[in-house]
Amino acid sequence: MAAATLEPAVDQAALFEFLVRIGDNTLVLGHRVSEWCGRGPALEEDIALANTALDLIGQTQLWLGLAGEVGGKGRSADDLAYLRDGFEFRNILLVERPNGDFGKTLMRQFLFDAWHYLMLKALKNSTDRRVAEIAEKAFKEVSYHLDRSRDLIIRLGDGTAESHRRMQEALDELWAFTGEMFVGDASDAALVQVGVIPEPQSLKADWDEIVSDALVEATLKRPTDGYMQKGGRRGVHTEHLGYMLAELQFLQRAYPGATW
Amino acid sequence: MAAATLEPAVDQAALFEFLVRIGDNTLVLGHRVSEWCGRGPALEEDIALANTALDLIGQTQLWLGLAGEVGGKGRSADDLAYLRDGFEFRNILLVERPNGDFGKTLMRQFLFDAWHYLMLKALKNSTDRRVAEIAEKAFKEVSYHLDRSRDLIIRLGDGTAESHRRMQEALDELWAFTGEMFVGDASDAALVQVGVIPEPQSLKADWDEIVSDALVEATLKRPTDGYMQKGGRRGVHTEHLGYMLAELQFLQRAYPGATW
Repeated sequence: MAAATLEPAVDQAALFEFLVRIGDNTLVLGHRVSEWCGRGPALEEDIALANTALDLIGQTQLWLGLAGEVGGKGRSADDLAYLRDGFEFRNILLVERPNGDFGKTLMRQFLFDAWHYLMLKALKNSTDRRVAEIAEKAFKEVSYHLDRSRDLIIRLGDGTAESHRRMQEALDELWAFTGEMFVGDASDAALVQVGVIPEPQSLKADWDEIVSDALVEATLKRPTDGYMQKGGRRGVHTEHLGYMLAELQFLQRAYPGATW
Repeated sequence: MAAATLEPAVDQAALFEFLVRIGDNTLVLGHRVSEWCGRGPALEEDIALANTALDLIGQTQLWLGLAGEVGGKGRSADDLAYLRDGFEFRNILLVERPNGDFGKTLMRQFLFDAWHYLMLKALKNSTDRRVAEIAEKAFKEVSYHLDRSRDLIIRLGDGTAESHRRMQEALDELWAFTGEMFVGDASDAALVQVGVIPEPQSLKADWDEIVSDALVEATLKRPTDGYMQKGGRRGVHTEHLGYMLAELQFLQRAYPGATW
């Protein structure tokens, strides 16, 4: 107990907020990717998408599990995933975008993976040991996600005229949803100050480099930064989230407390 | 009480089944049509679709309300609509088909309206006074639905090359879902015998005539009767119903007993 007094106090509400934000990102993207299950364009891709979804859902269990502990209301990861309403979700809008075609799903994945990779890399050095441990585990999985989505957007961007056109369209549509990843608020600042998380803006330069390099190889034109959509991190979502949650939460809503 | 003994006993389980079947048809189609709200191709059509949806939902309240009384388990129309699971729904598969484009929505509507019109016309003479009264009211609304969907499928079928192609595709896709309207089972037979409902098969000849006449005017080719999809009337549904119910039932599932 003596040691605790030597460390600066961590704002528990801010920590809960951060954990729910990152856990909701992986939950919502994991669910979106799982929608491909059995519908991939080739067996290999179908399995790869399902594995990505499973990794993300697995990370969700860890992040939301810790959020439940920190939140102090006795909520489990399942409670947080299945029993919150849309306005309580804190994921960025990018991850709730509909799948569209295979190319758009991969473009969304790549834009997110590049950020996710950098965020986890930084979180491995979190002053909160529990956060650092989850980041350590997730970082290995996400490094592979990034390798894979980077490779595929290059192959499809620098592919046929049709695949190139689709990838450019996906990029142009999704670009306005990338800005939200780098905007911090007072809740973030409280954790940055005590070394629990990196400054969101600090990831931008490396993200720009990863993305720009891949887009050059993919022969895709990087959109100019214009108006950026945001709101998800404070619970203001697009219409797409509600439909997803209606499906995702159906079982626990219809059969409260149901277990295997 | 003496009068009751003079009439043949009506199988209450069969009556409940029939009421849920017709009420689920109007509920599920009403919800599908409501999905167009704010998305119609023109204001006039948007409002017309919303009105059709409202008529169907209104009829649902009557049918499921009576089903609740007959079922004798104290369930209201709301309970039946919002708290049953997919396998307890008894609508035909046709009405759960996704909307597709405006033309497909109207083709589905027309194929259903023609049957619905004939069914209600017969039910106006039901030996069950309560059934006859609901049918009387619904028949007026549905006569108008049929006028409208018939007119529109003719205009779009006999329209541009593009609209003609789309209407023919919609017709070809939906045709296999029309057979289920005319197949009866033991539960139907029990009610036919006491004059509560018409023999399902007995509506086929008039339906064929209404449909064939309209298709000729619409310059559309009537598909040949091949394999007919069925299962909805006994609770075996396509994947589409579950997604619809997850959305339709969200509020009552998430906030049980919520009222205005």
